Amino acid sequence: MAKYSFNDDYSEGVHPKLLSAIVATNASQQIAYGNDNFTSEACNRIRAKIGCNADVGVWFVPSGTSANAISIGSCLRPHESVIAASSGHIVVRETGAIEATGHKIIQVPPENGKLTVASIQRALDENWHFPHMARPRLVYISNATEIGTVYSKRELKDIKALCVERDLLLFLDGARIGHAMASSKNDCTWHDIFDLTDMFWIGGTKNGSLLGEAIVIKDPKIAVDFGFHVKQHGCLLAKSWVMGAQFAAFFDPENNLFLHLAAHANEMAARLSTALVAAGHELVAETETNQVFAIVSLPVLEQLQQHFNFYIWERLKDAKQEKAVIRLVTSWATDADQVVKFAAVLEQSSRA
Amino acid sequence: MAKYSFNDDYSEGVHPKLLSAIVATNASQQIAYGNDNFTSEACNRIRAKIGCNADVGVWFVPSGTSANAISIGSCLRPHESVIAASSGHIVVRETGAIEATGHKIIQVPPENGKLTVASIQRALDENWHFPHMARPRLVYISNATEIGTVYSKRELKDIKALCVERDLLLFLDGARIGHAMASSKNDCTWHDIFDLTDMFWIGGTKNGSLLGEAIVIKDPKIAVDFGFHVKQHGCLLAKSWVMGAQFAAFFDPENNLFLHLAAHANEMAARLSTALVAAGHELVAETETNQVFAIVSLPVLEQLQQHFNFYIWERLKDAKQEKAVIRLVTSWATDADQVVKFAAVLEQSSRA
Amino acid sequence: MAKYSFNDDYSEGVHPKLLSAIVATNASQQIAYGNDNFTSEACNRIRAKIGCNADVGVWFVPSGTSANAISIGSCLRPHESVIAASSGHIVVRETGAIEATGHKIIQVPPENGKLTVASIQRALDENWHFPHMARPRLVYISNATEIGTVYSKRELKDIKALCVERDLLLFLDGARIGHAMASSKNDCTWHDIFDLTDMFWIGGTKNGSLLGEAIVIKDPKIAVDFGFHVKQHGCLLAKSWVMGAQFAAFFDPENNLFLHLAAHANEMAARLSTALVAAGHELVAETETNQVFAIVSLPVLEQLQQHFNFYIWERLKDAKQEKAVIRLVTSWATDADQVVKFAAVLEQSSRA
Amino acid sequence: MAKYSFNDDYSEGVHPKLLSAIVATNASQQIAYGNDNFTSEACNRIRAKIGCNADVGVWFVPSGTSANAISIGSCLRPHESVIAASSGHIVVRETGAIEATGHKIIQVPPENGKLTVASIQRALDENWHFPHMARPRLVYISNATEIGTVYSKRELKDIKALCVERDLLLFLDGARIGHAMASSKNDCTWHDIFDLTDMFWIGGTKNGSLLGEAIVIKDPKIAVDFGFHVKQHGCLLAKSWVMGAQFAAFFDPENNLFLHLAAHANEMAARLSTALVAAGHELVAETETNQVFAIVSLPVLEQLQQHFNFYIWERLKDAKQEKAVIRLVTSWATDADQVVKFAAVLEQSSRA
Repeated sequence: MAKYSFNDDYSEGVHPKLLSAIVATNASQQIAYGNDNFTSEACNRIRAKIGCNADVGVWFVPSGTSANAISIGSCLRPHESVIAASSGHIVVRETGAIEATGHKIIQVPPENGKLTVASIQRALDENWHFPHMARPRLVYISNATEIGTVYSKRELKDIKALCVERDLLLFLDGARIGHAMASSKNDCTWHDIFDLTDMFWIGGTKNGSLLGEAIVIKDPKIAVDFGFHVKQHGCLLAKSWVMGAQFAAFFDPENNLFLHLAAHANEMAARLSTALVAAGHELVAETETNQVFAIVSLPVLEQLQQHFNFYIWERLKDAKQEKAVIRLVTSWATDADQVVKFAAVLEQSSRA
Repeated sequence: MAKYSFNDDYSEGVHPKLLSAIVATNASQQIAYGNDNFTSEACNRIRAKIGCNADVGVWFVPSGTSANAISIGSCLRPHESVIAASSGHIVVRETGAIEATGHKIIQVPPENGKLTVASIQRALDENWHFPHMARPRLVYISNATEIGTVYSKRELKDIKALCVERDLLLFLDGARIGHAMASSKNDCTWHDIFDLTDMFWIGGTKNGSLLGEAIVIKDPKIAVDFGFHVKQHGCLLAKSWVMGAQFAAFFDPENNLFLHLAAHANEMAARLSTALVAAGHELVAETETNQVFAIVSLPVLEQLQQHFNFYIWERLKDAKQEKAVIRLVTSWATDADQVVKFAAVLEQSSRA
Repeated sequence: MAKYSFNDDYSEGVHPKLLSAIVATNASQQIAYGNDNFTSEACNRIRAKIGCNADVGVWFVPSGTSANAISIGSCLRPHESVIAASSGHIVVRETGAIEATGHKIIQVPPENGKLTVASIQRALDENWHFPHMARPRLVYISNATEIGTVYSKRELKDIKALCVERDLLLFLDGARIGHAMASSKNDCTWHDIFDLTDMFWIGGTKNGSLLGEAIVIKDPKIAVDFGFHVKQHGCLLAKSWVMGAQFAAFFDPENNLFLHLAAHANEMAARLSTALVAAGHELVAETETNQVFAIVSLPVLEQLQQHFNFYIWERLKDAKQEKAVIRLVTSWATDADQVVKFAAVLEQSSRA
Repeated sequence: MAKYSFNDDYSEGVHPKLLSAIVATNASQQIAYGNDNFTSEACNRIRAKIGCNADVGVWFVPSGTSANAISIGSCLRPHESVIAASSGHIVVRETGAIEATGHKIIQVPPENGKLTVASIQRALDENWHFPHMARPRLVYISNATEIGTVYSKRELKDIKALCVERDLLLFLDGARIGHAMASSKNDCTWHDIFDLTDMFWIGGTKNGSLLGEAIVIKDPKIAVDFGFHVKQHGCLLAKSWVMGAQFAAFFDPENNLFLHLAAHANEMAARLSTALVAAGHELVAETETNQVFAIVSLPVLEQLQQHFNFYIWERLKDAKQEKAVIRLVTSWATDADQVVKFAAVLEQSSRA
């Protein structure tokens, strides 16, 4: 029997309500390339949720890497660069997709997984020698971050103020924005996210959809032509309603499904986190969403690996012993019984 | 009530067997990014079908435009160009996606929708002034072509021989390869297609899948790194099994579903074509697959438009009257009753 | 002894006055990257010549291919395309440099080497299916054209009016703008060229400089950042004054050197053209600048080749006999005695 | 009167022997685009100097940024990345030109301005998650480095051994390779440089030429097509002999001019360095070539600035006082009297 996996939040399929939404589209003829009713409904529900006008663009693409590359490529001129944390997904897990569109990324060390006003300012200070250096033009942040932390409204406001002052676009990678919004640490509304950024996207794949991320584009001049970028990148699906239908279901005003799924993932992570601390293990980052990073000894690691799949994030070695940073990720589909079982194995192996 | 559409072959959803295949994946945890069992099964079935070794790469991407851009970009150096018919999909319907990867397309006039040895030779003759001209390196053909015609084995062999002689790669866009293989005009086996090309892809979207095209890469040096290109392009889906499951079902050896679906589409097109000819209308291209191109007068056009959606391909005007070239496309899902109804409306309106 | 060459207008070195200008810079320390006094003087003289304000950008780059690729790349977004004649230099002699910056070129057949309102309109009509087709955004013309013809003010005004109406940028490749301005066919002032285009460049290389083309950028938003594009492309020379000094000399108000050099080339071409016609040979295009295209029989061709180097543009073959289109190019440095000699050889061989 | 400049090594013109070489080409007709005799002679002399066969490519381009971007772009596939020191010229002074060709740069902290086996190994260790990370394929080093240090033969051999083991190309930016070869720290022959790298270039601009860098390409498969890349990038000059003539003079076997010019620059830098140390100032890096980095107090800085131009590299601030790192660069043209004068001003101001 395959071991239960806490490896990531995209190893399970699709939530039944989303699957039903797809199946429901199947009986009919639709207009291709996103001009169908399901997509239209999804756009309207997203616009209603974030509180914006109809001239705000909403586009669906099949993956996070495409969401980032298409969005960033759509609003930069060839000599403009991106400021990102060195831990940012576009830096470490997207095969150079941003550079493949021609743009340099200026990396700054993250603080608790985040960019700060000070770190962005430092990047600007070090990239001043024009035209010998590319011009910083867009700030890339992820919320939740790659280590599961969440930006406060204060942090976003401060970053946005700097961006306005320095003529920078603020772009938010929302691969796990559901988990951020559902976090107990969150104090932003959906409208705040819209208001405080220039472009952001709402991740479906890591929150229970089969595929699909929804990109929200504030600037009407960019929005009006956004379809060209999606199509040129090969991401304008003929049967785009497969994404539209899921997002319409995600943002069904009757059930708040999108938040609900993320809240479950967060709750499961909180329990794993609590169990780790209770068993005496150190967390590498506070558990604010659906990712848990903790340090375990090698014997504990081996015990856990006998029962579960998960990611060894880093190997540590000091004078006394070797240890490992493990990453546990939960999802909309995480089985609470498996969390209990994990806690039990952990407790037993940690006592030894 | 919405009018019945002969607009294209991607306005319907997914064949029930393919939908079942997706639903069946949903209960389990899978390994992401194409390392799941469904994808593995799909690859094996495709390899078995085309009769090739395990070192031949098979990769799944969500759209035809991404299949073309990723494949072509993976095997060209920056100064190398593509030879294509001016009617080729990469020339006229992909928003400059090939050029966006940096490569020039040399266009030649099509003959019956196809490239020929003579037209490729002419492109080579005209692109000789090195290094002031980009070096032709890849020949792009579509089968079925954009006007629905099918390459014979003789034609493919002759083109391949020229490619070998002139060190050109032969690439086949198979958005409608199912329809080509199911055509009565076809005399190629799947192995012939593999054998006579360097890279080709098998289109799912236009033959009944929700999304997904399968790229087959012969050269092991290109194949081994192909995943990088797919990922960099944002087309490596986390839940890639949604495509794997469908292609495993398409190529289920028990029911030959892929060919079966295309054959239905072709049959429906043949009936439409027959009806058009019977009603006295001229075909612009012979109906060899699932697309019908015919010339109708404006009154007939108007009658048809009252009942059906379809594409006006071109407006014609001569001394006597205005006419229109219409395109009718059928699919795996085309309703035979609607074909009968179309024929009836056509006959009535044409008699007038 | 090497044969005298009418092969092109860049096989000779640099006019003595330009060489002196370079030598004169050598004694001093200059500020690098175009911030020197020579470059500043050149910019001012060019601005004075074309009658424009100081916020119009003037930048120097080492070659025509770089002038085209940098300029066009600087003002297009990724999904925007270029309309050009199929005979355009960017289409046939620049190794796909425009496509290498990611942009598609829509080719239209030239008329007398030129684009026309009708041919641009046709390109727009055929590229309408958005977002499946790249959006036409820039019209590329050359003046003089690649076959040596010159746009009239009427023609430029009509093209410009269409561009304004359809939100297209008009870009003029001025590799041989000196020859155009010096042509007896020309009725444009330098200010007209500036006024009727959005961006154009003044070619030095083909009019007697060692290297260097001056790009004139009207839009201050593009102009202010233009240095980034030049630098990123590797064309911001450290000792940029080598170009500045030559252009300051070209546009020395005291001697009108730039026009003077081109006028000599044109005059030499006119004499060659007259000799060809007098000897009974047909011209392929009217000789309006410094290029002569004529049809000669093979025996005449062989005679001429014994004494001169030039380009065989095309081989022709009809029922009666084989012929060749030859191209003769003259320059600032063309020796009038060699023109006389050419006429003599021609006359003798043609009589036979 | 303008202040004497130690700002850089490209603010002076061209050495008289190189200027003579240019002037000498001017009387004749040459074959364009590098097919002239001067270029041919330059290639042969460079090949003789480095001890290689005729199938090794040698190409001339106008700038260092173009040399880097064209070379690196010519040998990478789209998903391959570059490892470079974060101080590398391609990282900090080339406007993202490498990224503009689509390739990611993995930055590692420099040690004494250099990459090491350990730092390259670390970059490989951190970029392992394929295909989610771009594949490291090329190692970029500069010799002399951006802070003027020189690689030993031992260091190069060790790096090369790692590159061979890990299938990495080793690329050497030789903007100041003359200064490296003329350094007392150097223990490499020209043949060593060729032997221990896959591609390198010889910088003319910073060693007394008007423009021009010579790229040496070992792999015949890359070399044979290199002209396409140069042309596509807009760097194949029509009158390419302007670079060929200078490089033929640089490598004239009779006078060893290239090394001679660099040796003068190094000697001048050594005197400045000695003066700084003698006056009690700390060097930030050992002075091994023609760049001097030293820390001075603000009063000393102000005194020096009254008489000389130079670069303030960094501002330092500690509890006691503010200081500045200054960079002094010498060249083939540096006036020994000005060095004496600098030492005098320095000594006087430092005593205060």
